[in-house]
Amino acid sequence: MIENTVEFDGQQLTRGDLLYEGKAKQVFATNDPAIIWMHYMDQVTALNGKVKEEYSGKGELNSNISNLLFTYLSNQGLQHHWLGSISATDELVKKVDIIPLEVVTRHYTAGHFVSRFGVEPMQKLSPRVQELYYKSDELDDPFMNDSQAVSLRFASEADLKTVYGLADRVNELLVALFNKVDITLLDYKLEFGRLADGQIILADELSPDNMRLVDQKTGKSLDKDVFRQKQGDLRVGYQDVLARLQGALK
Amino acid sequence: MIENTVEFDGQQLTRGDLLYEGKAKQVFATNDPAIIWMHYMDQVTALNGKVKEEYSGKGELNSNISNLLFTYLSNQGLQHHWLGSISATDELVKKVDIIPLEVVTRHYTAGHFVSRFGVEPMQKLSPRVQELYYKSDELDDPFMNDSQAVSLRFASEADLKTVYGLADRVNELLVALFNKVDITLLDYKLEFGRLADGQIILADELSPDNMRLVDQKTGKSLDKDVFRQKQGDLRVGYQDVLARLQGALK
Ligand SMILES: Nc1ncnc2c1ncn2[C@@H]1O[C@H](COP(=O)(O)OP(=O)(O)O)[C@@H](O)[C@H]1O
Ligand SMILES: Nc1ncnc2c1ncn2[C@@H]1O[C@H](COP(=O)(O)OP(=O)(O)O)[C@@H](O)[C@H]1O
Ligand SMILES: [Mg+2]
Ligand SMILES: [Mg+2]
Repeated sequence: MIENTVEFDGQQLTRGDLLYEGKAKQVFATNDPAIIWMHYMDQVTALNGKVKEEYSGKGELNSNISNLLFTYLSNQGLQHHWLGSISATDELVKKVDIIPLEVVTRHYTAGHFVSRFGVEPMQKLSPRVQELYYKSDELDDPFMNDSQAVSLRFASEADLKTVYGLADRVNELLVALFNKVDITLLDYKLEFGRLADGQIILADELSPDNMRLVDQKTGKSLDKDVFRQKQGDLRVGYQDVLARLQGALK
Repeated sequence: MIENTVEFDGQQLTRGDLLYEGKAKQVFATNDPAIIWMHYMDQVTALNGKVKEEYSGKGELNSNISNLLFTYLSNQGLQHHWLGSISATDELVKKVDIIPLEVVTRHYTAGHFVSRFGVEPMQKLSPRVQELYYKSDELDDPFMNDSQAVSLRFASEADLKTVYGLADRVNELLVALFNKVDITLLDYKLEFGRLADGQIILADELSPDNMRLVDQKTGKSLDKDVFRQKQGDLRVGYQDVLARLQGALK
């Protein structure tokens, strides 16, 4: 791992306690209570952690892709948690209280949507579908609707409106970008959180761990489905995504 | 079964082909294409039909309870499919194109909601929860959100608005009525359909097969949960519900 003190924006930041180790990232405190230190791990999981493997360099690929995508979103005026990269695998982000909801947008049928509703895969969904899942490993991230999320106090009606507004703006921007690099964005998952002042912003990561990406020319998966479906080394697709984004965003 | 011709509202109606046999009712055509003939069966099912039993007189109880509840809703100005009872177990209803969505309202946690979200049973849900399920025996009636229902063309945004508006009005009226007879309505399922002219109205049945009802004094279930949980003869509770509604609505 890297040095545990960095200078960032004229401020000395020291990595503190491990606050949380998730399936793909470690989250550390820093001496600034508003800032956390995220380390992208090489671990890849499927089936909510029941299948696990290490791919060296995968953390770096995801960190780089996330950084590119968050920077792109900033440049388009979208607020999010990302502050800056401090090494190949580590970044500083604004600490938020994560809203325990995964916000999924779907443009094509795939994955659970196919088995759940008995539809064919790779069918265009128009209008796009938006879904919420309750982030809970014990409960296997159950699918949830707005009314349930409100009644169970995960978010207010107003919070959901904000979240969907932000998700739609992110959607527009991501679809446009991936189209430019000949990739179809089938579906993806976002997370949102609250800053100390209550403002809701985009958080977590933006990487092929949380997106389904298909090469428009070859029809090949460039995301974690390669791992889920045991189709080879997922890093090949991630590397391709990174290279295309670097090309488009330079 | 009863005579297959009845006089209704000055019109001779003859029962025709069996159009559909569901888990609780048989649906027959009549000589009037706008009217169908519904027969309430004595069959009770659980786990989406995987558990089945006959309870003689159960069809009659449900038909009577449905008739009382639909009449009550009419008297409060709500539009629905029910035209009239023609025997102890049979009724005439307006034929609709059923929207393949079950609309569930929950006031207390129970059943799937409890296991799905890891909450305690019998907790008050405020605001009330509203859910959609895709009516599909093969797929086990999957839970679905508005965005999915719209994208899969089950209903338009405007249709859902109408459906939720009607569901909320029904909810208000049912909660008030059951409260008056010392019963707590935990949750229930409605179905809606489209008349030939496109109008969306309440359809199907209103019975303890599709509601969770709890006696406010004893805490006992008065609905199909008695069958699901093998707690005895469900007809005792259904009979009690019918008697109380007859008392309140006479
Ligand atoms: N800005 C942030 N502040 C606080 N926590 C965050 C922030 N961004 C993401 N997180 C959380 O960090 C955790 C670690 O990420 P990850 O390894 O992907 O976890 P998980 O296994 O829960 O998906 C996630 O629970 C995520 O919600
Ligand atoms: N007014 C109506 N017109 C046409 N079909 C209806 C009407 N009301 C209810 N139905 C349908 O009648 C079918 C028979 O009822 P039921 O035995 O409860 O079936 P299921 O096993 O599908 O729940 C249901 O599929 C229901 O949607
Ligand atoms: Mg994660
Ligand atoms: Mg039914």
